[in-house]
Amino acid sequence: MLLALVLQAAAIEGMWEPSQLLSLGQPLRSAGYLDDPARLADLRAAPLGALVSLGGCTASFVSDLGLLVTNHHCAVGYLQRAQREGEDLVETGFYAPTRQDERSGGKGARVFVTQSFEDVTEKVSGKVPARTDDTQRKALIDERTKKLVAECERPGGLRCRVASYFEGLRYTLVRQVELRDVRLVMAPPDAVGNYGDEIDNWHWPRHAGDFAFLRAYIGRDGRPADYSPDNVPYAPPQRLVVSPRGVQPGEFVMVAGYPGSTERWRTAGEVSRDATLQLPAYIEDGTWALDMLESVARELPSEAVKVNVPRSYLSNGVFNARWTLEAFKRTDVVGVATARDEALRRWIDADSARAAAYGPVLGEIAARVGLRDPDFERDRVMGWVGRSDLLSTARSLYRWARERQKPDAKREIGYQARDEGRYAARLADMQASLSLEAERRLLEHFLARAIALPPGRGSAELLAWVNATGATGGPEEKARAAVARLLADPALATAEGRLAWFKQGPAAFEASRDGFIGLAVALRPYDDARERESKDDAGAYARLRPRYAEAMRAFDPARVYADANGTLRVTFGTVQGYRPRDAVTYAPQTTVHGIVEKMGPHPFDPPAALVSAIERGKWGNYADPALGTVPVDFLSDLDITGGNSGSPTLDAKGRLVGLAFDGNVEGIASDYVFDAQMARTIHVDVRYLLWYLDAVAQADALVRELGLEPAL
Amino acid sequence: MLLALVLQAAAIEGMWEPSQLLSLGQPLRSAGYLDDPARLADLRAAPLGALVSLGGCTASFVSDLGLLVTNHHCAVGYLQRAQREGEDLVETGFYAPTRQDERSGGKGARVFVTQSFEDVTEKVSGKVPARTDDTQRKALIDERTKKLVAECERPGGLRCRVASYFEGLRYTLVRQVELRDVRLVMAPPDAVGNYGDEIDNWHWPRHAGDFAFLRAYIGRDGRPADYSPDNVPYAPPQRLVVSPRGVQPGEFVMVAGYPGSTERWRTAGEVSRDATLQLPAYIEDGTWALDMLESVARELPSEAVKVNVPRSYLSNGVFNARWTLEAFKRTDVVGVATARDEALRRWIDADSARAAAYGPVLGEIAARVGLRDPDFERDRVMGWVGRSDLLSTARSLYRWARERQKPDAKREIGYQARDEGRYAARLADMQASLSLEAERRLLEHFLARAIALPPGRGSAELLAWVNATGATGGPEEKARAAVARLLADPALATAEGRLAWFKQGPAAFEASRDGFIGLAVALRPYDDARERESKDDAGAYARLRPRYAEAMRAFDPARVYADANGTLRVTFGTVQGYRPRDAVTYAPQTTVHGIVEKMGPHPFDPPAALVSAIERGKWGNYADPALGTVPVDFLSDLDITGGNSGSPTLDAKGRLVGLAFDGNVEGIASDYVFDAQMARTIHVDVRYLLWYLDAVAQADALVRELGLEPAL
Repeated sequence: MLLALVLQAAAIEGMWEPSQLLSLGQPLRSAGYLDDPARLADLRAAPLGALVSLGGCTASFVSDLGLLVTNHHCAVGYLQRAQREGEDLVETGFYAPTRQDERSGGKGARVFVTQSFEDVTEKVSGKVPARTDDTQRKALIDERTKKLVAECERPGGLRCRVASYFEGLRYTLVRQVELRDVRLVMAPPDAVGNYGDEIDNWHWPRHAGDFAFLRAYIGRDGRPADYSPDNVPYAPPQRLVVSPRGVQPGEFVMVAGYPGSTERWRTAGEVSRDATLQLPAYIEDGTWALDMLESVARELPSEAVKVNVPRSYLSNGVFNARWTLEAFKRTDVVGVATARDEALRRWIDADSARAAAYGPVLGEIAARVGLRDPDFERDRVMGWVGRSDLLSTARSLYRWARERQKPDAKREIGYQARDEGRYAARLADMQASLSLEAERRLLEHFLARAIALPPGRGSAELLAWVNATGATGGPEEKARAAVARLLADPALATAEGRLAWFKQGPAAFEASRDGFIGLAVALRPYDDARERESKDDAGAYARLRPRYAEAMRAFDPARVYADANGTLRVTFGTVQGYRPRDAVTYAPQTTVHGIVEKMGPHPFDPPAALVSAIERGKWGNYADPALGTVPVDFLSDLDITGGNSGSPTLDAKGRLVGLAFDGNVEGIASDYVFDAQMARTIHVDVRYLLWYLDAVAQADALVRELGLEPAL
Repeated sequence: MLLALVLQAAAIEGMWEPSQLLSLGQPLRSAGYLDDPARLADLRAAPLGALVSLGGCTASFVSDLGLLVTNHHCAVGYLQRAQREGEDLVETGFYAPTRQDERSGGKGARVFVTQSFEDVTEKVSGKVPARTDDTQRKALIDERTKKLVAECERPGGLRCRVASYFEGLRYTLVRQVELRDVRLVMAPPDAVGNYGDEIDNWHWPRHAGDFAFLRAYIGRDGRPADYSPDNVPYAPPQRLVVSPRGVQPGEFVMVAGYPGSTERWRTAGEVSRDATLQLPAYIEDGTWALDMLESVARELPSEAVKVNVPRSYLSNGVFNARWTLEAFKRTDVVGVATARDEALRRWIDADSARAAAYGPVLGEIAARVGLRDPDFERDRVMGWVGRSDLLSTARSLYRWARERQKPDAKREIGYQARDEGRYAARLADMQASLSLEAERRLLEHFLARAIALPPGRGSAELLAWVNATGATGGPEEKARAAVARLLADPALATAEGRLAWFKQGPAAFEASRDGFIGLAVALRPYDDARERESKDDAGAYARLRPRYAEAMRAFDPARVYADANGTLRVTFGTVQGYRPRDAVTYAPQTTVHGIVEKMGPHPFDPPAALVSAIERGKWGNYADPALGTVPVDFLSDLDITGGNSGSPTLDAKGRLVGLAFDGNVEGIASDYVFDAQMARTIHVDVRYLLWYLDAVAQADALVRELGLEPAL
């Protein structure tokens, strides 16, 4: 009955900056929020003070001893890095009953705690000298950015970045504490955390227990430190309170987190280019690559575990692209964007002051968007060649060697002293997903395509290198011979080899006889040319896009929030289902009985302990009163995107009631246009999490650390 | 809101004989029926007086001029037989604006109007002499049945049969008028009548306009006659009134029709045998055959049109079997049947009189059920060999030749003078679906399997015939050679050839050098042996099953209706949706907008005229007031099965509001056990039918004949 009412509530689209919440008191209250919006905007108070970024995912502190809760799928890397010979922690799950049992999440594990935001627009993009060309503009912005970051990080233990809002209309310096000792506490088996896997991915009804627990540690001196057994749990400034009551359909919920990027401020020309060029090409190549990885996994069991994670990322990306394109057609996203930009154009033309200020902007952006398309096929194929882990590592290491010749402040962003530690960790960690067979098939396919491009349309550097290997015959034959050369004992195929080359100077690279290193050196002119183009584009966009955003905001005052940019955002709304198609209604909650109902071959093979606990039917206080049983996942009309994974879902009083972990296929084009009728966020219900810990995992210590008493 | 209420109403399971409705006044009224149950039980009054069987489908008279409405999928044969060179009426649809434009449905077209039922139990199974063995018992029943039928049909223009109810506990003589001139009036294009095709088959939400119109004609003398341009429309004794108001969710509906067969009175042993032996084997072989037919259609466009109908029947059968087996597992149908039979056994054993009367029955049936299983693999493979159209025709024609040697009354049931006309029509009609390439692949596969059976486990007759062809090598080679022999200019591959052989005597068959005829003659000892076994089984069951049914009815007085047996039945309940799985609710009505929403590649390619009419949005009086638009299909909790297709759906006053055309996959095991929570009948809404005729097909004459005035 509630359902019918709830469906009428309109979603409040928007990924709000915390400071914007101060002016959203009215909509927040109408949606059901019961606390003071000012408290919600305060980075140093709960709940936002308890939020952290894991770099690509979100987590939140849920105890005074640094305990973090996030998604299972955000902890997969931790499980892989923490596992020992003969273990498969992704499959079995993990639980450390005491702190001594917790395991390091590896050298690359990071937790970022946002401390403050500072508007640095003037410092970044102000006072640009006359006659600065676009390339110079980009260099200027980079130089100023590096300076701000360096100053910000000087005290140590901090990570700072300059984020662009509204297409460069505003720049903000984000200051974060960086914790480097993060350990694995608990994750359910894959068949719980990832129940339904790729079949259920992006779909409702869903029954995944997509949760996991980590713990952040610091040095005994109270400062961020690398992993050491001597470290102590980090005492977070704030932590979330867990509400075992959960939420009901129609109730207020909000999600705070670190959404990565959206495209809602793209011009019609850009959306159209994505629809006709970028997405179809990506779907085609990605589908090939996905099939290839699946063949590798099927044919070579020893490689299966290596390609598993890249395969699942690629599968997610291709699925997303395919359905985004479908949604583009279904809801005519390009037509809507075109009509919007045309209306903006008419509005600009209708007033001479506006015409003077913004007149040429739309046309200049349009010209810039299509500027590189004559070389689209070349760059498309070269891009996929560059997805080879060994080639991209060789290119990065060669770049590192060159950048290290410069003073730190002059180095390219991403190649400074501050970046060394994380890159070294990546060089070590990549071993888990490095499959030489997948490398071989990827390179043979895309090298052959690169070689087969019409004369003058490919990369001359690549062709010269292929010919220099002595490879002959048709494109396939040449590619096979060249790849055989590359894969003959590659120096970068081991962690030791990569770390050794991380210490070498440019001359060593240029003298090396290693295949991948030689190819990286050979491609340098190609890479340099692309970088010059891309910097020129970035400089042009830094000049044009702020004016487009400014015009659009003046034309359409409803466009009040910026595209996602990896900074802390809040989205709020209500728990509600939807009507995916004629005669079908999706309720906003699933139950544990749905897990049993779905049972079948993998990925619908829940652990016996879970099934028998469901059959036992002891729900303790974790049952939903209306459902009479434990809810598993629920839906809301919140506005999230990739990066929000693991974000805490909060109730009207800011208490933890779930974790956001996915969107729905019907709303998959939300990165471009948010469809309030169809777009839904999928959350795991905190009551399933608690019931699972209590009744299935018997993780009593963890339940107590969450402030509750085990009862089952 | 209604939905929540409606879902609580329990379905009234049962396929009721008309006479039973007299005692169902109370449940009929609670369900919402507003008329007198006595009227409903009267075969000579409307609505039942308007019902007819098409032989495998149901239809009903909707005008005084013999106009019949049924399903599109029941009229596909009519469309194929009525089409002329260069036409594809299944694809384009058909509409005859005047009676002169109507086309003959072919020689095999039949309409049966039930006139009366007569209890003949005593005449069929009474007074069996002592020491009659099972084979003799079957012969006695057959002889008595033939005598009753012959007497019944003596006046001419009638078709009579003896139907068995409650496993032979009761026999009823059914007297039907047989109309032989049936013409095609109107059918929408396949993309309307069969929208969604096999993807949507058995599924909700559904958007098929599964309706078509035929017209029955009789001779000028008022008697049933073969097709002639001089014939006149048949004036039916009763016709249905069309209600353009339709029905709403929660309202009473009933369906009257000719359900073919159900298995609800099977013993646990039989259900278990189906679950473990029969269904898995059928699914395996049927899937192979389906793949084969699909390959033929894909590889040879000329054959595609021929294999289309057999393919769709097989696809339906295999889908049904597969999901029935799934449902068996999900709801433990075997376990439930076993518990029921065990309870019956305990009830029998608890009383000495009952033990004396019924004690051995369960055990004897169980022994009989498994009696032929040692030869299961042989008969399974031979059964599929026998699915060759040419081989089965050769066997039937040879049998006809032998039976014709006997006086009519002594001939086997199905081979009497009364059967000749329809069989001749079938010999002609089968040409449309005869694909020699499909014959070749089917026979090569199953002959090879028959040859490969272990020594002594196959049919000696078949092996001897194969060897006599001179075929050598392994099973595949032998089969290929033998099939090449069969398909070398087969005499039965044309209608003329088949009809010519229909006149031959046994000696001609036995002297023939034709491959298929030779194989039919060679298999005669095999066929005779199987027939002896099957008659002995039938005699045994005729002795045992009535006692099982009698015991079961005494034990469980709720089991008040008989298995479907092709006789007229009524089922009633309400319009309602269901919850197919956790968090998903299906509303009981789809709308025309869902047609547009589903649009895509075939089979989701509706005609442009339909799409533009939907986009125009003129609904006239055909809109559902609550939906604000035209409903397409709807669900009810009625209890139907194959044979009910085309059945009129009637409202609380017996007016036509739709046509039943399918069941749902969640209720697919209903032939064994009716699941009131999940089993639903899918109907096409009369308002979609009327709106389509009026707004899309512009079939004004037809709308007027239905008693309405075109308005769009």
